[in-house]
Amino acid sequence: MFEVIGERINTSRKKVQEAVASKDAQYIIDDVQKQQNAGATYIDVNAGARIGHETQDMQWLLDTIQPIATVPLTLDSPDPSVLEMAFQMAEKTPMINSISLEKERYDAMMPFLEGKNCKIIALCMDDSGMPDSSDDIIARANTLVKELNNIGIGTGSIYIDPLVQPISTDSNKGVMVLDAVRGIKAKYPEVHITGGLSNISYGLPQRKIINRTFVTLMMAAGMDSAIIDPLDEKIMGTVRTADMLLGHDDFCMNFLKGVRAGAILS
Amino acid sequence: MFEVIGERINTSRKKVQEAVASKDAQYIIDDVQKQQNAGATYIDVNAGARIGHETQDMQWLLDTIQPIATVPLTLDSPDPSVLEMAFQMAEKTPMINSISLEKERYDAMMPFLEGKNCKIIALCMDDSGMPDSSDDIIARANTLVKELNNIGIGTGSIYIDPLVQPISTDSNKGVMVLDAVRGIKAKYPEVHITGGLSNISYGLPQRKIINRTFVTLMMAAGMDSAIIDPLDEKIMGTVRTADMLLGHDDFCMNFLKGVRAGAILS
Repeated sequence: MFEVIGERINTSRKKVQEAVASKDAQYIIDDVQKQQNAGATYIDVNAGARIGHETQDMQWLLDTIQPIATVPLTLDSPDPSVLEMAFQMAEKTPMINSISLEKERYDAMMPFLEGKNCKIIALCMDDSGMPDSSDDIIARANTLVKELNNIGIGTGSIYIDPLVQPISTDSNKGVMVLDAVRGIKAKYPEVHITGGLSNISYGLPQRKIINRTFVTLMMAAGMDSAIIDPLDEKIMGTVRTADMLLGHDDFCMNFLKGVRAGAILS
Repeated sequence: MFEVIGERINTSRKKVQEAVASKDAQYIIDDVQKQQNAGATYIDVNAGARIGHETQDMQWLLDTIQPIATVPLTLDSPDPSVLEMAFQMAEKTPMINSISLEKERYDAMMPFLEGKNCKIIALCMDDSGMPDSSDDIIARANTLVKELNNIGIGTGSIYIDPLVQPISTDSNKGVMVLDAVRGIKAKYPEVHITGGLSNISYGLPQRKIINRTFVTLMMAAGMDSAIIDPLDEKIMGTVRTADMLLGHDDFCMNFLKGVRAGAILS
């Protein structure tokens, strides 16, 4: 089944920041329940936007969310001390967002991850910047899988983010990442592929049709997870439909359930 | 570039039949011009619905359409005598719709096609019925390509229709045809893949989202042509968007042209 990492609980979003600042627990609870009802299978929690408040905001968010959470959380921070606190609070095996090959982040995250029972999002980013070819993405994914395996994280717990780049800057950016996903999945059938999708349409008009057509192509290539807004009915409807067409929905049950719930519109 | 075979000029459609019966040339001209403006690269012409009138209806339709046609025609009939007449009238190299491995159709079509300069749609159908596995589809495509090559039709002029079947009858029907398309294209990179798409959603609700998600998956697998209604803006917008994402649209020019024309909506 496709994993939907709901991206809405992020203090860089104005309403979430206001709710956190005013301790409006009901707003957060309502948002999380809406994401779960819409099909989120992880809830990402990012408390990074209020400078100097990340630890206490993360703590308050977890205290608020966990009593009503039916799915595990994605703990989203670059700061291992925040992640350590959040990891200790987590009631279900969490996903960590994220490690990369950038030296500073890598050196901070590896000791935190060693020996932990968690899922991890691993970005194909290094200090030279974004990857510039399929082979480059695949090489970075190889390094991440090997290094994470070495500290005890199994391949099936790794979510590689190949870093989707805008097709407006280079007509080849779609094919580049699609080829990379196929290459990574051919080498590591158990690894997961995740990431944001909306970068693909940056700089172009009518972004939503680009994003949902692209998620379909990425799913065909082997992407089995994405960081998206579960309340975006068009992209969620496309994900359920593509899952069915790719043979992951026996008797079209999930599709039909989505239609009955009003979540899949033509 | 993706080939769009516009399916609207078919006397089984009530308004087309009325226009043909009353010799309303303007109706036909308007419809063809709309299809061309929307991006049709072939106009399919099927005059089969008025029993006993096919030859004269086909002749009148070609007389009506050709003066304003900027794209070639797809001559759509099971009757070689109708096709022979239409072929002689054709001003641009036509596409013929269609041959199959059903004995009666095959035996009638092969003598007509021998030595002709045309494109041909070749259906993966035989007298045992629809194919029931990817390997079965691929085997039928192999036979069609070899037999057509033997009578002088090059692989690049053959449009294989793998016969899309309803996913409501078997959750595997999507994967079956997608795998078959990849298999056929791996063996014959020059062959084209075409067909109708809407069978995939037969028996299910919200058919349009299924059809447009499916065309995206089929394009990723190697489909480079489809028999569709060019006035269906949602599927046409998806086709242009997928073409861009698959690297077939330098500088996103066709996509942006489509947006400016109001033809691509989120």
